[in-house]
Parts: sequence; C-alpha cells; structure tokens
Amino acid sequence: MTKPLRIGIAGLGTVGAGTLSIIEAHGKLLAARCGREFHVTAVSARDRTRDRGVDLSAVRWFDNAVELAADSEIDVVLELIGGSDGIAKEVVETALANGKHVVTANKALLAHHGTQLARAAEDARVYLGYEAAVAGGIPVIKSLREGLGGNAIDRVYGILNGTCNYILTAMRESGRDFSEVLEEAQALGYAEADPSFDVDGVDAAHKLAILTALAFGCEVDFDSVSVEGIREISALDIAYAEELGYRIKLLGIAQQSEGAVLQRVHPCMVAKETPIANVEGVFNAVVAEGDFVGRILSEGAGAGAGPTASAVVADMMDIARGSTLPTFAIPAAQLAPSKGTSMAAHVSSHYVRLMVTDRPGVIADVAAALRDEEISMEAMLQRGHAPGEPVPVVITTHATTQQHIASALQRIEAMEAVLEPPRMIRIESL
Amino acid sequence: MTKPLRIGIAGLGTVGAGTLSIIEAHGKLLAARCGREFHVTAVSARDRTRDRGVDLSAVRWFDNAVELAADSEIDVVLELIGGSDGIAKEVVETALANGKHVVTANKALLAHHGTQLARAAEDARVYLGYEAAVAGGIPVIKSLREGLGGNAIDRVYGILNGTCNYILTAMRESGRDFSEVLEEAQALGYAEADPSFDVDGVDAAHKLAILTALAFGCEVDFDSVSVEGIREISALDIAYAEELGYRIKLLGIAQQSEGAVLQRVHPCMVAKETPIANVEGVFNAVVAEGDFVGRILSEGAGAGAGPTASAVVADMMDIARGSTLPTFAIPAAQLAPSKGTSMAAHVSSHYVRLMVTDRPGVIADVAAALRDEEISMEAMLQRGHAPGEPVPVVITTHATTQQHIASALQRIEAMEAVLEPPRMIRIESL
Ligand SMILES: NC(=O)c1ccc[n+]([C@@H]2O[C@H](COP(=O)([O-])OP(=O)(O)OC[C@H]3O[C@@H](n4cnc5c(N)ncnc54)[C@H](OP(=O)(O)O)[C@@H]3O)[C@@H](O)[C@H]2O)c1
Ligand SMILES: NC(=O)c1ccc[n+]([C@@H]2O[C@H](COP(=O)([O-])OP(=O)(O)OC[C@H]3O[C@@H](n4cnc5c(N)ncnc54)[C@H](OP(=O)(O)O)[C@@H]3O)[C@@H](O)[C@H]2O)c1
Repeated sequence: MTKPLRIGIAGLGTVGAGTLSIIEAHGKLLAARCGREFHVTAVSARDRTRDRGVDLSAVRWFDNAVELAADSEIDVVLELIGGSDGIAKEVVETALANGKHVVTANKALLAHHGTQLARAAEDARVYLGYEAAVAGGIPVIKSLREGLGGNAIDRVYGILNGTCNYILTAMRESGRDFSEVLEEAQALGYAEADPSFDVDGVDAAHKLAILTALAFGCEVDFDSVSVEGIREISALDIAYAEELGYRIKLLGIAQQSEGAVLQRVHPCMVAKETPIANVEGVFNAVVAEGDFVGRILSEGAGAGAGPTASAVVADMMDIARGSTLPTFAIPAAQLAPSKGTSMAAHVSSHYVRLMVTDRPGVIADVAAALRDEEISMEAMLQRGHAPGEPVPVVITTHATTQQHIASALQRIEAMEAVLEPPRMIRIESL
Repeated sequence: MTKPLRIGIAGLGTVGAGTLSIIEAHGKLLAARCGREFHVTAVSARDRTRDRGVDLSAVRWFDNAVELAADSEIDVVLELIGGSDGIAKEVVETALANGKHVVTANKALLAHHGTQLARAAEDARVYLGYEAAVAGGIPVIKSLREGLGGNAIDRVYGILNGTCNYILTAMRESGRDFSEVLEEAQALGYAEADPSFDVDGVDAAHKLAILTALAFGCEVDFDSVSVEGIREISALDIAYAEELGYRIKLLGIAQQSEGAVLQRVHPCMVAKETPIANVEGVFNAVVAEGDFVGRILSEGAGAGAGPTASAVVADMMDIARGSTLPTFAIPAAQLAPSKGTSMAAHVSSHYVRLMVTDRPGVIADVAAALRDEEISMEAMLQRGHAPGEPVPVVITTHATTQQHIASALQRIEAMEAVLEPPRMIRIESL
C-alpha cells in the first residue's frame, strides 16, 4: 500500500465536521478503495474549544489556516471555510503555491477566481477538486468532466439552490406567499438569517459559472451571468402555473450558440411532465445535454453535512488514486476566453400576469401593445368579473426576444387600467 | 502530448459504429481533454464488405477478432460483439493476457465472468472498463465507484431495461395489453425479434449483478439474482395500479442486510410521486442510496448507438488519462465471496388481483386464507356486480414474507370461485 494521504482541514463547520465523520466512519473502506489510508494530520478553525463531535486530540491544531496550508507534512488541503476572497482564497493559493492538492466546497471562490486557481494548480501539477461546490452530493463535476467527456455539451442546466427549491415547493404545496414560507425555511434551517445569496440567485449563479466553464471549456465568467431571484414570485403566479401545466423553478441555464455562451439564472415555468419539474423540496438536479448521449439528469441532496462531505471525500479519493485531471477538463491555457452574450437577444415564450381594472377596452389595449411589438399570444386567461375591481389577467406568449417583451411590458405598465407592474416569468422548453 | 492511444475495435455493429462516430466527430476534443490522441488502428467484424458509415480504408482489418486482441500495436481493445461466452470472452481474455486495456459493453459477459475477468485485469495491471454495460449513457459505474466512493451503499436499484420500461409505459398510456405493445415495440426497433432476454428480466439481471458487485464490494453473482419478467403484467393491473396511486416498473434491486445481499428483478408497484416512477419510455434510471450522501438518482438513455458509445468513450478517456482503478472498486482479491440470500425471507407489501365468480362468501373465503397466513389487508377493491359473472377483486396487503403470500395465493387459487391464477405484484417502498 502507498503511504497515507496526509490531510489538513481548514474549516470545521458543517462540511468540515461532516468530512471528519466520513473519514472516521469509513477509514477501512477508503483504504480498500484507494489503496491508501486517509490521515487527518492538521486542522484549523476559529474556535479551538468548540466540540466538533470528533476527537481531535491527536491532530495538530493551527490557529492560522494559511500556516496549515503551507505545512510541509500535508499532501492535501481542504478549504472548507467559505467566502470568495479573504482567508479562503489565501488558504487555497498558499496550498497550491506549496505544491499541495486542494479540495474545496467553495463555489463563491471558484466563481470569482476559478480560472486563475486552475492555472495555479496546473503550474504546481496538483489537483484542485471542487465536486462539493456544485450540487452538493451529486457527482456532477465528475459526470461532466469524465462520464460525459466524449460529448460536446449543448446545454447544461439545473436546480442549483436547495433553499429556493424548498421555498417554491412549499409555496406551491401550501398556497402561501414568499415571505411567509421564507420565514418557515429560516426556522427549519433551510435558509440563512440573511437569505439574499440564496433567494436572489447569487449562489445558483456561482454554481452555474463553474458548470459553464467545465461544460464548454471556457474561462469562468461569473460577471456575465444574468441573475434574477425568486422574491417576486407570488402564490398567485404559482397557482396559475399549475393551471397552465407548469411548475415554477429557479433554474441556472447555460447554453452555447455560435461560439458564445449565455448564462442565466431566473425563475422558469417548466412543463409539469419534465423530469426537472418533479425535483422538489431541498433537492438539487443537474441536466447535461450531450450531442451523443442525449439528456442525462442527476438528482440528489445539494447541501447538508453528509452529502457535501461525500463530495469532498470523492475528490480526495481521486487524489489518493493519483488522478491528475485538469480543473476544467482541459488545460487551463486552452480554456477559451469568455464570450458571454447578454439576455437581450435571448428568445423564449413568456408568462405575463397583470392586475387590471375590469372595464371595457383594457384587453384590447394590452393586445395592441403586444401586437405592436410583434408578440403573438398563445393563450389568455381572465376569470371572474367584478366591474371596476382589480382582476388578474394572464397571458402566455409565443417565442419573442427580451427586448420585445420588455418594450411591450413597459407600455402595458403605463396604462391607467393596469394597477401593478406586470409580472413576467419565462417559459422554458426543456 | 503523450503518444496516441491505439485502439482496436472488435465488433462494428450499433455500439462499435457509434464509437467510431464519436472518435471521428470529437477527435480534437478528446485530445484536449486527455492530452492524448485517439487512433483507431484496427477493427474486426464478420462482414468486411458492409458499409459502417465510417471510412475504414486506413485501418487494419482482422477477420479474426482474437488475433486483433493479441496484436502488439494496440493499447486498448474494445469488445463490442456481445454474448456471455464464445468469441467475446475469448477476445477479452486474450486482450488482458496480452497486457491490453479492455473496454466492453457486454453485460452478459461480466455478469457471468466478471470476477474472473477482474482478476485477470488486475494481474495484467490493465483497466477493464464496462461503463456501457449498465444503463448505457448514464455514467453510473463511475458514480458508484468514484463519485459516491465515500459512502457505504445501503441499496442500489433501477430501471435497467429500456425495452421493458417502454412496453410498460406504452401499456399504461394506451391501455393495450402486453403482446400488442410488444409487437409495436419490435416494429419500432425498441425490442428484439426474440425479446425474451429483455422481457423476462435477464438483461436487467445481468446489469444488477454488476451493480451489486460494485456497490457492495462482492464477487459478481448472477446465479443468485431472483428474476421475474413482465409478460404477466396485464392492462387491467396497470389500470388498478394507477387507481391505487402506483406505477408498475420492472426494477432491479440489490440490498444488503446482515452481510448478505438480496438481488432481485421483478415488476414493482412504486408510488407515483417517487422520482423513479416518473422515468418513462425507453429511459433508464439508477438510484444509489449512500449512508452519507442519501439518495442519488441518475436518468438517461440506457441504449442506442450514441449513448452507449458515449460510455465506451468515457472508459477510453479514463485509460488515456492513466486511470488504474480496480474493476469493482476494490482489489479483486478483496471482493467478498458472494453470500446471496433468496427471496424466501424477503418482506414486502403486495398487490393481489383475483378473477372470481361473483357470489356470496367468496370474499370471506379469500379473507380467511389471508388471515390464516397472518397477512393483514390494507385495502380491497371490488367494483361492479354481475352475479354469476367473473369480476376482478383487488387486494393490497401489509408487509408479509414471500412464503406467507405464496401459501395464501396457493390456497386462494384452489378455490372454485377463483377463475384464474391470482396475479401478484410487489409494492416497493422506495
Ligand atoms: N453547508 C453546506 O451544506 C454546504 C454545501 C455546499 C458547499 N458549502 C460550502 O462549504 C464551505 C463551508 O461551509 P460550511 O457550511 O461548512 O460553513 P460553516 O459551518 O460556517 O463553517 C465554516 C468553518 O470555517 C471556520 N473558519 C472561519 N473563519 C476561519 C478562519 N479565519 N480560519 C480558520 N477557520 C475559519 C469556522 O470556524 P469555527 O467553527 O471555529 O467558527 C468554521 O469551522 C463554504 O464555502 C460553503 O459555501 C457548504
Ligand atoms: N445496442 C445497444 O444499444 C447496446 C447497449 C448497451 C450494451 N450493448 C452491448 O454492446 C454489445 C454490442 O451490441 P450491438 O448492439 O452493437 O450489437 P450488433 O449491432 O449486433 O453488433 C455486433 C457486432 O459484432 C460483430 N461480430 C459478431 N460476431 C463476430 C465475430 N465472430 N468476430 C468479429 N466480429 C463479430 C458483428 O459483425 P457484422 O457487423 O459483420 O455482423 C457486429 O459488427 C453487446 O454486448 C450488447 O449487449 C448494446
């Protein structure tokens, strides 16, 4: 058997402690599977006195995680602290610079500095693992990089944030509104006290930027991801979606066309029969469409100690087994410079909901605004009649550009009989 | 760049030609991803004159695939002929004996000789890839062996045969009976002229035996798989399943308990809400339940030229990148001897359908037979009344052993008012 893999763990929170648990529970199994023992030799966190549920008395403690990253008796550094910059970045850079393999669960870090870190890993001839950074326990990085490696990927998309999916599912099941369900999610630990990274789509966008680089062989380009969150989704729209045969999901979608990549995160209406529409609650799912393999969907837990640590351990197994794969599947120098396109030219169908005063001529005005922007309606729903009262009017359109729909909505919003800003949700054909 | 990977392909049918297409279409991509070019240097099939849709004029032709397998100018041999014995086995054994890596899509071969071939590969220090043998394009072997490698697997199951899933889906959607739908599937190319390997569950059992070895680290033990196919499934039972909130799926299920592994392939009723119930048509899906990661489901095309070749190419990429993983995740010598248990002790709920003469006392007799076997009923459905005419009676039971249900059904079948052998389908809680 090869000599043990010496592991230094920076960060002993949810993921760090979870990783320690797996190594403790499955030491023998890991050794059998890798031909090599896993030895945690050093750890670092802020509070040395906190009980981590695992005996750390035999393990070297570092108050300074950057010193751990430079330590000569460590083969692989796990960065499980978090944050796109600061200490986490310093730990990873130091480890790479010192010729150590790195495993991280930090999507923010990779979304912002992925290309540069991939280059550093390559220069140092070490492995930079980040399976845990996207979709938690689902081995989606490995699938894209290796399992589907014989394909050109046409499109990759997924439910990349469990908090949002939990909220949307609970809203649909209970008929309650966003804010109420968010509070419940916070109480249950499914949402952070400050939920903005999740509900505003930033976390999903981090993960999408990583998937995009990997799927299309281009530099990580978080800045060109178009991002919308789920705060504007109302119980009413969820009910209408249901009636029209759709589910509302926050998806991250990356698609290549004519050499450019469009990356977008926004609420989508997806047909109820599609597999992704049926991924509910805190679960994540990723779909990759390859030119030979077709559509592959993987579903599972996207967060939590066990699932995330499972992914961290998988990366360590690759390292223990001697894998030397480039970070984003091809050598960093070959990654195409990002050529992100904006949403402007993106074409899709739309769901539009208005609240209008129920009086003659309103519908005609709305229809005219759409016609003038060359948008053709697929269906219109108006239920109940309460002359003079606000009533919802729902329209679905055929495919049109963002520009056209935006102009039409602007015109519609300005109408006197239209009482609130129109709500618009894109209808995705998946 | 390392020197090219020299590939010899034995078998140029659906999968072989598909593999050639990928190498032709994505030569550059593969080289970028593996740091190594893929060169097909030799091929073998029966009919040299047949047009394979790919230019083979520059490639050496072997009439004898075994000679190809021994050729000194080949690094990896693709066995894409098929069959558990005969030429396919000879090709694989010869290649391994000659120190060549092997990639095969042949589940029958691995189900019958997997342990022995894994040993041979290990002795020769070469890679034996078989991603294509289970669930076609879905990278399920890689997921289990690597992506979920940090887990002890509690249970693995799946829809492993697209032909059966197509037939069951079409039966449900059209209300037609098995034989009619089978004919249609044959006309569409979804079922073979001799469909027995598929519809009798043998093909699914081959794949399950492979998954079992990989998931539980034991020798491949096809002989202890309990196998039932779908010939007995009727349109009536599918309709009742729907009414009771279930879908009928042919599943392969392997579960470990007290050190022994139960492997079974049979039609199952699964709750409509479970992800696997919604995998329809020719698609396959595999679910692995890990102790840390929880439930991971992967879904995609389980057969066809593109998807299957995608998996073959993924294995070649691993070889090109220098992977040296043991065939069934741990060294062959460490695989536990098979300790397969039989169905006898297996406990589950059951769906039972009888055709009875509608006359007083029948139900009481049936209920007494169940009671005597200590089987408690969960529900009973009897619709329509046509005194003296045959009517269906449907019963669902609470959990009971195979032995108890078999005895009860035997007793029920002997009753004069029971007109046909009872139909029984296990209800799986997934
Ligand atoms: N939680 C999940 O389900 C999940 C899923 C996917 C990815 N991730 C990612 O995994 C990473 C870790 O997440 P987490 O949930 O485990 O976070 P967490 O529970 O907040 O743990 C963070 C850990 O980092 C330590 N730490 C903070 N500042 C430090 C410093 N200056 N030096 C050394 N240690 C420091 C903390 O120490 P103390 O314990 O002493 O405070 C704590 O142990 C993040 O990048 C996150 O995005 C998490
Ligand atoms: N088809 C699928 O979707 C699929 C999916 C998963 C796994 N698989 C597995 O992949 C393997 C190949 O399946 P397939 O569908 O590609 O089969 P196929 O279309 O019937 O092709 C078989 C190939 O083997 C060649 N062959 C037969 N006997 C030979 C011999 N003695 N020497 C050399 N070549 C010989 C045939 O030559 P000729 O062309 O000259 O007749 C043909 O090219 C099987 O193990 C199958 O179970 C298939």
